[in-house]
Amino acid sequence: MPKSAPTQQLIDGLLEGDRLALARAISRVEDDAAEAARIVRGVFAQTGRAHLIGVTGSPGTGKSTLVSALAERYRAQELTVGVLAVDPTSPFSGGALLGDRVRMTGHSGDAGVFIRSMATRRGTGGLARASADAMLLLDAGGFDRVIVETVGAGQAEIEIASVADTVVVVEAPGLGDEVQAIKAGLLEIADIFAVNKADRKGAGRTVAALEMMLETGGAAAQAVLHHGQRMEMEAAASETDAEEGWPIPVLETVAVSGGGVDQLRDALERHWAWLEGSGARSAREGRRLGHMLQTLVQAEVLARMERTLLPGLRSDLVEGMMRRQIDPYSAAAEMVKKLSG
Amino acid sequence: MPKSAPTQQLIDGLLEGDRLALARAISRVEDDAAEAARIVRGVFAQTGRAHLIGVTGSPGTGKSTLVSALAERYRAQELTVGVLAVDPTSPFSGGALLGDRVRMTGHSGDAGVFIRSMATRRGTGGLARASADAMLLLDAGGFDRVIVETVGAGQAEIEIASVADTVVVVEAPGLGDEVQAIKAGLLEIADIFAVNKADRKGAGRTVAALEMMLETGGAAAQAVLHHGQRMEMEAAASETDAEEGWPIPVLETVAVSGGGVDQLRDALERHWAWLEGSGARSAREGRRLGHMLQTLVQAEVLARMERTLLPGLRSDLVEGMMRRQIDPYSAAAEMVKKLSG
Repeated sequence: MPKSAPTQQLIDGLLEGDRLALARAISRVEDDAAEAARIVRGVFAQTGRAHLIGVTGSPGTGKSTLVSALAERYRAQELTVGVLAVDPTSPFSGGALLGDRVRMTGHSGDAGVFIRSMATRRGTGGLARASADAMLLLDAGGFDRVIVETVGAGQAEIEIASVADTVVVVEAPGLGDEVQAIKAGLLEIADIFAVNKADRKGAGRTVAALEMMLETGGAAAQAVLHHGQRMEMEAAASETDAEEGWPIPVLETVAVSGGGVDQLRDALERHWAWLEGSGARSAREGRRLGHMLQTLVQAEVLARMERTLLPGLRSDLVEGMMRRQIDPYSAAAEMVKKLSG
Repeated sequence: MPKSAPTQQLIDGLLEGDRLALARAISRVEDDAAEAARIVRGVFAQTGRAHLIGVTGSPGTGKSTLVSALAERYRAQELTVGVLAVDPTSPFSGGALLGDRVRMTGHSGDAGVFIRSMATRRGTGGLARASADAMLLLDAGGFDRVIVETVGAGQAEIEIASVADTVVVVEAPGLGDEVQAIKAGLLEIADIFAVNKADRKGAGRTVAALEMMLETGGAAAQAVLHHGQRMEMEAAASETDAEEGWPIPVLETVAVSGGGVDQLRDALERHWAWLEGSGARSAREGRRLGHMLQTLVQAEVLARMERTLLPGLRSDLVEGMMRRQIDPYSAAAEMVKKLSG
């Protein structure tokens, strides 16, 4: 399969389980939005079978190692696993490593595991668009489980909730305040919490804080973690809306030694069964596809803006703003009027 | 100044240096995009005087403490300082604290320092929009120096480059691999590097790596930091395009004791003088206002989409996608056709 293989050949290869075709297709999807459209069109009908698992957490929680250990457990059950490691803070993309990706080389040579990293800098398309597309490609490629791993920072954790069936939030004890602070945003998206590095001091406190937070809806556990520190509590309170009928488990894992990873895999299987049984799976898929649609529409509208009349108008408006003759909001209103007029 | 004060009263108060009016205006700008438009329109003519300084860095680098120490040094010169601490990963917003913001209470009672935190969850407007607006308000409020501090993760560090005249990237030794990894993205936006916690082991190596990276354009220093690890170098290489004539300094600071902070302030003053002298200041302002314009236009286009015909069409398309009758790209194309037709 040469790098310049025709698109249809890549699509056919990918659907037949050819891993090189899959790798090439993901590269094209990253590099070129038009090619992404062609490839996704070609494979979309074959998607919707994999269990899409999102894993997120702060740097230092050991989530890469945990994902690797999890992949191993799936392989032991003869399930195939595709892993997409998305790092919105890194410029490095491709077959190679991000963070401690090296540890996953234990899987090399096993065609039942496919690992791919994806970063900000490559290509033009936007990371969110490209990673959503790559998930579809892995799904169409026939993997039973597709894991997308992101650093939990800013938008990333919100994006992950919009591409996955099940979201695992990884925490770890003793990461220092700024990192450790449990985010209400993460609480909202978590289906499963994994407290990794659970053999370390403070793990019990992290687990207790999470459990209390899940029970109380946030405020009490914030108090435990940040005692002595004045914080605004209202925002955190009442935001933990666990879906009816799925009690969010807090698991302890020690990824490096494999401790607790079986339990994590079991929890994932239970959640998958629950999603199917409760109808939540198709509700989530609807949200996911709706989100994808919106992202694509926005990108297309923006591209049109840039292709058409607007560059000249834009520079006139910027000049007016620099002279303080027009403010940004009035300038934007003028531009939108032109765009739709 | 009651919470419900009319917009014009807030604007007038803010422009006269009333800090409570400023605080209220920032809250409105966060909560309500329409009100933001009115307030920014009212103050925009009075902006463009402050030196806008962006400070970014990974969690744990001590950037909050450094910002606090820097504000102190400015105060010692009778310069007024507005600080906006933006945390895209936190749900906490308002007058209170984010991260170790408590340490900044040393400034309380000094009307020449104004500190405000801003987070994701508040209001509807989008954090990038709201923080750009708040910078304008601080500028119009008459502060000599306006510092915006963000956690360096994902988009945040790119946003900061688009709102500041001068960007300080804070690093620290010994933060572990995933955090420590010097990002090509940060290299591109830095005007000044501060290696904080420079009294710790490994500071010299961090400084050396940064300096080498600045000299070589990335590859060699990556090798120093990640020796033994296979990485793709091409992406990092040749991306460090220092603006002609400004040699990017790498400074050592110890924010908790104040070490090196005078040197940081001096470097900032030098950069400010250089921006003025070289014409780079207005070039950057043009980029900044152009970016703001684009953000506002996108938001407005999106709002129009949501107000008009599209919700019904959207749900039809999502349903078609769930049945695998139409793929996301074809659905998006159909939606854009309707939007512009």
